[in-house]
Amino acid sequence: MTAKRQLHLNTNVTALGRHPAGWRLLNQPNAIVDLRFYQQIANVAERGKLDALFLSDAVALKGHARGPSQALEPTVLLTALAAHTTHLGLIATASSTYNDPFNLARRFSSVDHLTGGRVALNVVTTYDAAAAANFSLSRVPDKAERYARAREFVDVLAKLWDSWEDGALLADQDTGRYADPDRVHAIHHRGTYFQVDGPLNLPRSPQGRPVLIQAGSSEGGRELAAATADAVFTAQTTVEGGQRFYADIKGRARALGRNPEHIHILPGLFPVIGGTEAQARARKAEMDELIDWEAALAGFAQVLGVDADDLPLDRPLPYEKIAKVARGDQSQGFVDATLQLARADNLTVRELLDRNPGAHRIVIGTPEQVADTIETWFLQRAADGFNLNADVFPSGLEAVVDHVIPILQRRGLFRRDYEGTTLRDHFALPRPASQYAEA
Amino acid sequence: MTAKRQLHLNTNVTALGRHPAGWRLLNQPNAIVDLRFYQQIANVAERGKLDALFLSDAVALKGHARGPSQALEPTVLLTALAAHTTHLGLIATASSTYNDPFNLARRFSSVDHLTGGRVALNVVTTYDAAAAANFSLSRVPDKAERYARAREFVDVLAKLWDSWEDGALLADQDTGRYADPDRVHAIHHRGTYFQVDGPLNLPRSPQGRPVLIQAGSSEGGRELAAATADAVFTAQTTVEGGQRFYADIKGRARALGRNPEHIHILPGLFPVIGGTEAQARARKAEMDELIDWEAALAGFAQVLGVDADDLPLDRPLPYEKIAKVARGDQSQGFVDATLQLARADNLTVRELLDRNPGAHRIVIGTPEQVADTIETWFLQRAADGFNLNADVFPSGLEAVVDHVIPILQRRGLFRRDYEGTTLRDHFALPRPASQYAEA
Repeated sequence: MTAKRQLHLNTNVTALGRHPAGWRLLNQPNAIVDLRFYQQIANVAERGKLDALFLSDAVALKGHARGPSQALEPTVLLTALAAHTTHLGLIATASSTYNDPFNLARRFSSVDHLTGGRVALNVVTTYDAAAAANFSLSRVPDKAERYARAREFVDVLAKLWDSWEDGALLADQDTGRYADPDRVHAIHHRGTYFQVDGPLNLPRSPQGRPVLIQAGSSEGGRELAAATADAVFTAQTTVEGGQRFYADIKGRARALGRNPEHIHILPGLFPVIGGTEAQARARKAEMDELIDWEAALAGFAQVLGVDADDLPLDRPLPYEKIAKVARGDQSQGFVDATLQLARADNLTVRELLDRNPGAHRIVIGTPEQVADTIETWFLQRAADGFNLNADVFPSGLEAVVDHVIPILQRRGLFRRDYEGTTLRDHFALPRPASQYAEA
Repeated sequence: MTAKRQLHLNTNVTALGRHPAGWRLLNQPNAIVDLRFYQQIANVAERGKLDALFLSDAVALKGHARGPSQALEPTVLLTALAAHTTHLGLIATASSTYNDPFNLARRFSSVDHLTGGRVALNVVTTYDAAAAANFSLSRVPDKAERYARAREFVDVLAKLWDSWEDGALLADQDTGRYADPDRVHAIHHRGTYFQVDGPLNLPRSPQGRPVLIQAGSSEGGRELAAATADAVFTAQTTVEGGQRFYADIKGRARALGRNPEHIHILPGLFPVIGGTEAQARARKAEMDELIDWEAALAGFAQVLGVDADDLPLDRPLPYEKIAKVARGDQSQGFVDATLQLARADNLTVRELLDRNPGAHRIVIGTPEQVADTIETWFLQRAADGFNLNADVFPSGLEAVVDHVIPILQRRGLFRRDYEGTTLRDHFALPRPASQYAEA
């Protein structure tokens, strides 16, 4: 199968938009719990033929509720959105540290059934201490342990998703045979973290297995991704950094005997779009006026693992202090991307916050300029596509769909219509056979 | 508040219908994973102005897949159904033994937001050994431990659901104030089973707290219900047994300082309806022809906690053996109800399976006869309402909605239309204030 390489684009709806003051410009102030807000976005995304809508997640309140963060649990929110869409893929984040594999396997399989095969699981290991304190743990498990558990967790998921072979549900009304016992398998998993007998109490789902995405950039995250993921989310601010990451993951996958075309590298991208570059800059400046700097700083300090007091707005980053923390349990990818950008141009904290929102590359300009960036990264193999962040919803996404997508379509880089119905179809990924099926 | 006492009726959709061969008469053989099957039922239930649709659940495959059992995870299935209904309450079962309270509190709160306040949690402690083997446990925790954990679990749920007071989400676009920190509370729970800091990462939901239902009939289950539940599901086969249970729970609630009108007793009821009693009996006989007796016996033996070999079809129950097991970890309510009925009429296993499906009272007859039973139990305070089981979907439920409900409405026992929009409204339950709100 050597089909033409395709560009993949998701919309990241987390926290009501990437710009920290974006929520102040919404037409639904309480959008964080309002299904209609998400429906509107899903409809725009589907109109743009995007691959999927993505929700990141956390299992603790972020930033003392000084601004929005993902609140509605992603699997139920995406299930609710499925009723209002027909093709759009639906990517939900869940933590392997704070879930049981049986429950999670079953819920994602259920959503896959309910959506006709449109769901993906973005599995994260969750580094923040506040999460541990919500799950009866006195400390966050260290990174090595989190990734060891994640690896076994993903292994158990695959076994459970495969435990009913395709066609095991007979539902034969004439003979009364409900299922074929020879095609329903106990999994008898005996591991370090989990002992799971199985089988799952649910027939195999439309995609066979929900699409699996991984978002860690540390050594453990890269190994997990190369071995198991269908796609990798990453924070990259330069083409060169993106190329290095891209080559690294594809190389690891190849070394493990996988087809590197079956693992997509999808960095985040944050476009702020105007009819002219000046208009785009004015749009951003107008939003920047509304930033609560104290809250922004608190959130940024939390990601870096330092105190807000360590980050005077108009001075450079305290590199040594951050480097020390970063070797601990923070998100390696975000910290690396942030330090790289800050060092390159010797930025102050304020300049950095301005140019590096969420450690993603920001592009402020015309639809052509945004399309150029996407094309460059794609053709130079720094990315197979992007998680697109909108500054404000729905206008930030509408600008992409109405003005950037048509350019990408004219350049032959992006689909003009969906060619299949499942997320595996959009991602051009094969549907895996059950590991328990006779060859 | 001394409003007229109202009858409450739910439809129990678990396992595609109560009759073990019901699935062989469906027009969608693979209904167990087909959203359209559930949509059709939800629409009929809402047309009948029923209080809610109920899904029981298990976290292990039942009966070796020889017949249907709940497969799709209830919270996501009910969320999908919400898009196709506007008023119907949605009751999902979940286990306190195999979930973390933070995750479950958040998911039910999310569904409550997404459904405009229509969700209930039926909390169970899960007695079957197969479940333990799916969650890395070498044995099922004993009943006392399961209920001690359940009690603390429910306590943590309430704290998390209350952790954002009503109105704590400001989303004030003019001032940039997103939330009121004085109305968002850490819960600092330190218990035997859980240590949870909180707050939940989600504003308070429309019902304040999702409706809480309990289904255990053992001493531990009754205590938990009396202290915390808004409604109790129970298996009762005689009016007298129902009255005893009813008086017991209401008495316990009163003794704990609760208003006994705010805890509804809802036994299961299994009507098989025909235009005449003879037609109803013929309908049942026709279905009975299709029963896979071996599978039925295997399922029954699993509930009783004995081997299928211990249950010859045409001999009485092995009471002593069952009594011994029943003091262990099986579902006390089902075993009690079953033994009570079998002893009263000295039934063989076959007769018992016939008259006691799922340990619920069966009524085979005309709509009048079914309505009479409902009225008798309601007026004699053996029940505040029922979980109605259908023999086959949709016809079993349509017979209730089209022929039984109108009789109950004419008798002034059941609503002619919904008077509110939330499940608390239908159940005539007050919306609780946050325990953290200043009085």
